Amino acid sequence: MKTYLECLPCFVRQALDAVRLVTDEPAVQEQVLRQVLAELGRIDLGWNPPQMGQKIHRLVREVAGVKDPYREVKKRFNNAALKIYSKMRELVIESEDPLEAAIRMAIAGNIIDFGVNGTLREGDLEETINGCLDADFSGLQVDAFGRAVNDAEEILYIADNAGEIVFDRLLIEQLPIAKITVAVKGSPVINDATMEDAMLAGLPKIVEVIDNGFDAPGVILESCSQSFRDRFEKADLIIAKGQGNYETLSDADKNIFFMLKAKCPVIAQHIGCATGTSLLFRKRPTAITGNL
Amino acid sequence: MKTYLECLPCFVRQALDAVRLVTDEPAVQEQVLRQVLAELGRIDLGWNPPQMGQKIHRLVREVAGVKDPYREVKKRFNNAALKIYSKMRELVIESEDPLEAAIRMAIAGNIIDFGVNGTLREGDLEETINGCLDADFSGLQVDAFGRAVNDAEEILYIADNAGEIVFDRLLIEQLPIAKITVAVKGSPVINDATMEDAMLAGLPKIVEVIDNGFDAPGVILESCSQSFRDRFEKADLIIAKGQGNYETLSDADKNIFFMLKAKCPVIAQHIGCATGTSLLFRKRPTAITGNL
Repeated sequence: MKTYLECLPCFVRQALDAVRLVTDEPAVQEQVLRQVLAELGRIDLGWNPPQMGQKIHRLVREVAGVKDPYREVKKRFNNAALKIYSKMRELVIESEDPLEAAIRMAIAGNIIDFGVNGTLREGDLEETINGCLDADFSGLQVDAFGRAVNDAEEILYIADNAGEIVFDRLLIEQLPIAKITVAVKGSPVINDATMEDAMLAGLPKIVEVIDNGFDAPGVILESCSQSFRDRFEKADLIIAKGQGNYETLSDADKNIFFMLKAKCPVIAQHIGCATGTSLLFRKRPTAITGNL
Repeated sequence: MKTYLECLPCFVRQALDAVRLVTDEPAVQEQVLRQVLAELGRIDLGWNPPQMGQKIHRLVREVAGVKDPYREVKKRFNNAALKIYSKMRELVIESEDPLEAAIRMAIAGNIIDFGVNGTLREGDLEETINGCLDADFSGLQVDAFGRAVNDAEEILYIADNAGEIVFDRLLIEQLPIAKITVAVKGSPVINDATMEDAMLAGLPKIVEVIDNGFDAPGVILESCSQSFRDRFEKADLIIAKGQGNYETLSDADKNIFFMLKAKCPVIAQHIGCATGTSLLFRKRPTAITGNL
């Protein structure tokens, strides 16, 4: 997916959110914002949005001299998710359709996205997770997903955010774990999950977890490590969580299920759904319009 | 009031709204956005926001070759306001406190602000106006305003937007019109009222109407015409409508009542109220905090 003009004000807002998180120094905040504005004035709109996102967040980290601005935020949301994990696990197991229940929770966890909403609180998370089993999720291709998982031999589950990854575990536990490898980011960007978060969620105890060797808030294949690219190539089913992975993989020639909450109006329009829709769909947006 | 970092993403969004209104040509839209981003990268944050607003909207008009991008929008909202004018006038006259009722309507009309909300519809206006007499308006210094009007000899009423100016008329009719001069913008910018809109509202039939000779979405005194500056100087009471006039006159050394809906969080914070508050207050924000 390319970058749309609507993404430009959002990039500026994202840069401001990020730099405010790392420093109270107005001069540093101003310097970052000015550099981001200058970069945006020269942006290649053929890029997908996470390519610019990466540039912005690298700039914030460099200018502010902070390696992981969202470290505290990630910790808070990992803890909030872990606090309700057991209760949610029980709800999934006792549910009439555990696979769908786990899918709903994994998607609900996708609200933890500081690229989109820099003011999310733990209370919002709990509310969303608690309500997700009764919510109206009309965009889920649960049966097709179940069949695809059964048919696949090697599944690459590309995670999105810290905190959210705890709810991904609920879903992964409903899948044949021997087939599954989970991929996280190679190093910190926004609140995206890295190996540290996967470990906090206890994922390496049940499946293989790899990182993609890069720091974009999505999967920019040509920049990822060779070992990640090999695993991506070899997998016969990709499960891609969240907006950043949709933005970067929507045109990839692979068997992909995207699983996300379409929080951004530009992405929602690209998919062909209303903003806010919870989705699990096989790759081609055009093929799923009827289901939305 | 100076420009805050939060204003930067908002300027980009405003430029996009404006250029989308004048052209469907992606190349022109992109050109304007790139120029605005480059300008913003060099912005003097000591400027008040309408100084940048003026630059942006001039650029949009120049690049797109359209003299008044908001002409249709202004016409639509003038008509929507005129359609309910008689009914509202009756409500004001029959009200227990006609001055406060008229103030409420003049402030409610201030939602017609395409700098803040580019997707407002006529239905939203009717809803707001119809509800304004019962709404909780806690930030109105009605008695102090009434006394100031009585004490003044020459009142300059600085209007804000088209459509809104019809509701300003309702308030002006409650004031001693012999003391009042109304000022509008010298030429089009966003949906700000110009002489054409004042005439549609029938204002020149009841008071003197002048223009300020300039096209900023606020009053940048040093750029206004000499005749406007003379009137501003001579007036012993200024009534300034809307956010743009607050942004440009909040530091002016005059006897000013500001009347606005604080739609923007930066302005609300500057005033010291919650976003969305309806306000009528004498100049010094610090002096009114207790009333909000």
